[in-house]
Amino acid sequence: MGWVRTRRDSKGGFSFLEINDGSCLNNLQVIADHNIDGFESDSGKLHTGCCAGITGKLVQSPGKGQNVELQAFSIEVYGAADPEQYPLQKKNHSFEFLREIAHLRPRTNTFGAVMRVRNRLAYSIHQFFQDRGFVYLNTPIITTSDCEGAGEMFQVTTLNPSSPPMIDAKVDYSQDFFGEKTSLTVSGQLEGEVYALALSEIYTFGPTFRAENSNTSRHLSEFWMVEPEMAFYDLEDDMDLAEDFLRYLFKDALEHCPEDLEFFNKRIDKTILERHRRIVENQFERILYSEAIHILEKSKKKFIYSVEWGCNLQSEHERYISEEVFKRPVIIYNYPDEIKPFYMKANEDGVTVSAMDVLLPKLGEIIGGSQREDDYEALIKRMKAKDLDMENYYWYIDLRRFGSAPHSGFGLGFERLVQFVTGMENIRDVIPFPRTPKNARF
Amino acid sequence: MGWVRTRRDSKGGFSFLEINDGSCLNNLQVIADHNIDGFESDSGKLHTGCCAGITGKLVQSPGKGQNVELQAFSIEVYGAADPEQYPLQKKNHSFEFLREIAHLRPRTNTFGAVMRVRNRLAYSIHQFFQDRGFVYLNTPIITTSDCEGAGEMFQVTTLNPSSPPMIDAKVDYSQDFFGEKTSLTVSGQLEGEVYALALSEIYTFGPTFRAENSNTSRHLSEFWMVEPEMAFYDLEDDMDLAEDFLRYLFKDALEHCPEDLEFFNKRIDKTILERHRRIVENQFERILYSEAIHILEKSKKKFIYSVEWGCNLQSEHERYISEEVFKRPVIIYNYPDEIKPFYMKANEDGVTVSAMDVLLPKLGEIIGGSQREDDYEALIKRMKAKDLDMENYYWYIDLRRFGSAPHSGFGLGFERLVQFVTGMENIRDVIPFPRTPKNARF
Repeated sequence: MGWVRTRRDSKGGFSFLEINDGSCLNNLQVIADHNIDGFESDSGKLHTGCCAGITGKLVQSPGKGQNVELQAFSIEVYGAADPEQYPLQKKNHSFEFLREIAHLRPRTNTFGAVMRVRNRLAYSIHQFFQDRGFVYLNTPIITTSDCEGAGEMFQVTTLNPSSPPMIDAKVDYSQDFFGEKTSLTVSGQLEGEVYALALSEIYTFGPTFRAENSNTSRHLSEFWMVEPEMAFYDLEDDMDLAEDFLRYLFKDALEHCPEDLEFFNKRIDKTILERHRRIVENQFERILYSEAIHILEKSKKKFIYSVEWGCNLQSEHERYISEEVFKRPVIIYNYPDEIKPFYMKANEDGVTVSAMDVLLPKLGEIIGGSQREDDYEALIKRMKAKDLDMENYYWYIDLRRFGSAPHSGFGLGFERLVQFVTGMENIRDVIPFPRTPKNARF
Repeated sequence: MGWVRTRRDSKGGFSFLEINDGSCLNNLQVIADHNIDGFESDSGKLHTGCCAGITGKLVQSPGKGQNVELQAFSIEVYGAADPEQYPLQKKNHSFEFLREIAHLRPRTNTFGAVMRVRNRLAYSIHQFFQDRGFVYLNTPIITTSDCEGAGEMFQVTTLNPSSPPMIDAKVDYSQDFFGEKTSLTVSGQLEGEVYALALSEIYTFGPTFRAENSNTSRHLSEFWMVEPEMAFYDLEDDMDLAEDFLRYLFKDALEHCPEDLEFFNKRIDKTILERHRRIVENQFERILYSEAIHILEKSKKKFIYSVEWGCNLQSEHERYISEEVFKRPVIIYNYPDEIKPFYMKANEDGVTVSAMDVLLPKLGEIIGGSQREDDYEALIKRMKAKDLDMENYYWYIDLRRFGSAPHSGFGLGFERLVQFVTGMENIRDVIPFPRTPKNARF
């Protein structure tokens, strides 16, 4: 059972049908004699996009391009697809066009392959952590807290938006569904820390949201994130885990998705197979933020953004370091205090924090993580310096009052990973139904 | 490394510490001579809730209650927990009280066990579907569509709520982030059908939302749902899969969580182990909705809600049928058209649809599913009868215009499953941070 991709009629009174059921990239070739049951009556419907059930005998194929083929005994059409109206005729369609018909694009070779690879990566993420005894954690989507610095938030409400209840010229959120102002989560990290400080090693894998007006090929308003959090890990343990994790995922994808990755390597980006193998086979480079700045300053390359100690690294800097200088994944660590959020652990030098970013050639940052500040006094000091509302974070602070422990974690943007593994240029093409500014269709 | 659960000092100059790191229910007993490194200096901190790293020799235990114990060489306290302030002292706390300190409750026996069982069930769900070649699908959380009849929705917006832009006395959603009115999803089914009609067999596992003011022990405003959707499955295939799925999950939990389930069986509900084994070992009963009505009508039991053909079954009816009549899980199928949503397949009798619910003793409905209407004309007719806006569903209707196929699916509320497997009475106690009316804390 599957969907007809192509049909070719032979003069000898039979037809060749290419059938695909989405389980793999390759089609099954069907030889249908025009005298078999159902052929004559359904022949007018057997076009590209039509869905049919075919009974037959699977035999070795004498033709080129396939090992086996099906000699049909009978055909039943489940649903036709009028060639005058069905948008997916046999020709190349632009990814822009396919985004307009996101409800039909999974029936194409490219999107079928993307979704199978995405599926394998998701499962592989679970296997990696489960094999190591991590507990999968569902942190809340609707939240009253804000993982500071992560980004703009969407508001969640059941109030009547054209006339919300007001009190003292402000919206009276005590009448809203949750009795206070709520938003969609930008990160499950803070809640992840709660559980790491009880179950030792946990990971989240769920949707997160950014209400930023970023119309780029690397940003989504809704995306899935993986966030492990581990008690008793320092920054080095954190970097070790991040490296093991990424190499495991690439190895697993090469092993389990060879057909789909060959397809991407041929049609989308001819360098991905080689790049993935290099990631699996080589250790990541690890350099201090200060070294990275030094490398960038002494480089003869012209950058759009100038570099000095204390600056945020831009994508052009990150790619230069991983692609051109080291030609492999690079972990940069110990970033300046000032450019990092309140929860990161202060280093003894007084100016840096135990933060790390993993950079991949071609992509830039794929993982960001840190050791967390586990000392009560140091955390309070950092929160005051960043002018945060302590009351809002009382439960997070409590973790440092009661049985605190060194702990670390990181976050991986799942769609960026799928993008990198498949070589797809636009992040909107690696998620079933992308949400971006001015677009929440389907 | 772990958290001190209890400490007992012996007169002989040593202490017994019970240490737990959340990886399992049982503690590790530590024998700490008062002369070892770190003991004297940290002794004042070694109380319940304190986090410590202990080095020592693991030996067979001469005492009762454990096979092994640790003879400590040295102790280092990572974080103290002032006994005057730490709320989790060694005594029984009510679940209501523990909900108030949801950031500390995972450190208790009960919540550690709940989260380990929850973790295992989540992984087991992935394994079940992955082993069968299903593709894991992330359907959108923010949506403009509404899986009709599923329930009230939360609105998602970035407009200024105290003065939203207005046009013709209505909120001008063209200025909202997505350019139209958006909500949190109540179900991924419709988008799941898109992918089933391309990849054949898919499943979702993600958060869903209901803005209903239900303050019961079985309702959450934010919960996780599993929704498989399969091309080429009719209602019977759908029921077969649902039954296989549930029996697999219970079998897997019994195999992989024996210690935690023994704990629940002892402390929470003394019938769960026996009930789970019965589910694994016995076939589910399958009866028509009409038969269920007949059984209820002729029963001598007094129900709060009266019964007649065409009514919705209430929890009391569902539990009577599965607990008292059949004493096992029951699948009721072929429900009246009028009480079911537009997307369910009309049966030939003209009054019922191919819907099914799986009922568990003690819990009631755990799975609801159906064969979907795959015929274009029949779908349009049903949508008109239910007065739906066709334009909004153009892409869903397209699936019946282009390569339609018989297909079916179902939904399982994940927290209800965890509730049933653990025996926990309140659904707020089987999710890390519950969201309910007037509560979105942490």
